[in-house]
Amino acid sequence: MKPYILGVDVGGTTIKTGIFRSDDLFLLDAREIPTRTENAGAYIISDLTESIHHQLKNMSLKAKDVQGAGIGVPGAVLDDGLVMHCANLDGWGGFYVGRYLEQLLDFPVCISNDANLAALGEYTFGGGKGLVSQFFMTLGTGIGGSYIKKGEILTGSHGAAGEIGHMKICYEEKRTCGCGKKGCLEQYASAKGLVECAKLMLLSDREDSMLRNIPVLTAKDIFDCARARDGLASKCVEGMTRILGYALADVSCLLDPDVIILGGGVSKAGDILFEPLRRYFREAAFPVCEETKINPAILGNRAGIYGGAVIVRKGE
Amino acid sequence: MKPYILGVDVGGTTIKTGIFRSDDLFLLDAREIPTRTENAGAYIISDLTESIHHQLKNMSLKAKDVQGAGIGVPGAVLDDGLVMHCANLDGWGGFYVGRYLEQLLDFPVCISNDANLAALGEYTFGGGKGLVSQFFMTLGTGIGGSYIKKGEILTGSHGAAGEIGHMKICYEEKRTCGCGKKGCLEQYASAKGLVECAKLMLLSDREDSMLRNIPVLTAKDIFDCARARDGLASKCVEGMTRILGYALADVSCLLDPDVIILGGGVSKAGDILFEPLRRYFREAAFPVCEETKINPAILGNRAGIYGGAVIVRKGE
Repeated sequence: MKPYILGVDVGGTTIKTGIFRSDDLFLLDAREIPTRTENAGAYIISDLTESIHHQLKNMSLKAKDVQGAGIGVPGAVLDDGLVMHCANLDGWGGFYVGRYLEQLLDFPVCISNDANLAALGEYTFGGGKGLVSQFFMTLGTGIGGSYIKKGEILTGSHGAAGEIGHMKICYEEKRTCGCGKKGCLEQYASAKGLVECAKLMLLSDREDSMLRNIPVLTAKDIFDCARARDGLASKCVEGMTRILGYALADVSCLLDPDVIILGGGVSKAGDILFEPLRRYFREAAFPVCEETKINPAILGNRAGIYGGAVIVRKGE
Repeated sequence: MKPYILGVDVGGTTIKTGIFRSDDLFLLDAREIPTRTENAGAYIISDLTESIHHQLKNMSLKAKDVQGAGIGVPGAVLDDGLVMHCANLDGWGGFYVGRYLEQLLDFPVCISNDANLAALGEYTFGGGKGLVSQFFMTLGTGIGGSYIKKGEILTGSHGAAGEIGHMKICYEEKRTCGCGKKGCLEQYASAKGLVECAKLMLLSDREDSMLRNIPVLTAKDIFDCARARDGLASKCVEGMTRILGYALADVSCLLDPDVIILGGGVSKAGDILFEPLRRYFREAAFPVCEETKINPAILGNRAGIYGGAVIVRKGE
């Protein structure tokens, strides 16, 4: 095995690259550049290549010193490496990203879905370290999830395993989810879902609230106002954590993981999120699973580059 | 490997034993005796041993011709083989059933949970044959389930994986489930749950119904009356299949199996169950999973003895 491995995370906002020592996957250097999404992502490949070349040069490394790069992209990746349409990258995708990059970088490239790589990074070096199984949930604009057991990500028959965001929560919902169905978890417990539920509550409830003074409401505003004991904001958080806690109890019924880990922007809300979430989880969980831990992700936004390094080492 | 394998299923009503040819697990002979549950199951071991000896003698076989027996019991089995309290066998259990039987039978014995063995039998020789993954649900007095991928049953951190019967379906339920929680799938969609929901409806709804003429209502009565277009019975089945279809849609979100298979007494109801169940499943399923098949179990009540034979061969 060559002495260095690269982990890369191509996101809607930034592209993160990390250089790892191969033998213990110690992170030697991390770098972040903005993602230029204009022109259907036409600059992504060249910006990424340039950034990696720059980073290698800074450390006086050559392509021949690199075992390979594991790269996460925000879209589905077929078994043969074809990257499908990436909605958050202005429609970038539809081609063999890995094969193309291998020619530009001169070392092997392995492409995978970014949420899966973040889960794998967290499993190997974060909150799942040393455990057999982990359920990882990303609470961001949407809700993603993945189940890992013994280092292997459960993908499922149609690549849909772990899609906790599209569990059906409400039977009577009239609004349609991004997936086309109605009543999905994502419509209530993602950042976007929480904001939409708060807006509906502000329209239907006449109670005074700090939220009425905020022109463009975000999930963070709602948690901040709940922390300041605003009644309506607290009701929103209570409703959201109840739904989420019950859904995670269903996850523990079906998958019974050693640990449940929450990543993504919303997971940074801290105790105001985790305290009621754990309470509702325990209320609904199958008795033997009541003690299953629900913890925030440890690696934060570096989980993806760690996961990238892990898949390269796994493929050695 | 020796030429014969035994598969045994110890149930609350009968004990089933099968003799299989080792090389292809072809079932040569099956036998069934009643389970005597009196005296905390004191006769189970001796009845079972006698039945097997009888069966072997009938085929002119000796213990040295048998590779081993895989035996399913209706309770939790710890990793070291200790069988825990079996509620449906008058509290039988609490001892190392396998070690004890090995002395009486003179060949190796492997003990496992009966629901898991039925799922494994169905996976290997029934509706899951040739597929990668299967979710198996038993719709009986209660609801059990298990997920198998590549021949391996997912057990989970606390042995609770696959416990679909205890997914939280209704947030407002006042009645308590057998597990101690409220609003579990089992309270609405098991044989017992369906009957209880029907009884509640008969009390709250004044509509005339054939169900009112049946002194001791069973799930089969409800399906039979629905088939005869009884309005209230049809409403019960509609409500039950909706809840079950949505719950299976959640299963396909989280596990995304190649196929979903329904076993147990209730699954024999046929189209009156499967038609609305598939319709509600499709309505709620994550789009890529809409086509996942929901099929009745093929092996019926022999799935358990097949599963017993499979674990013996796996352990060869």
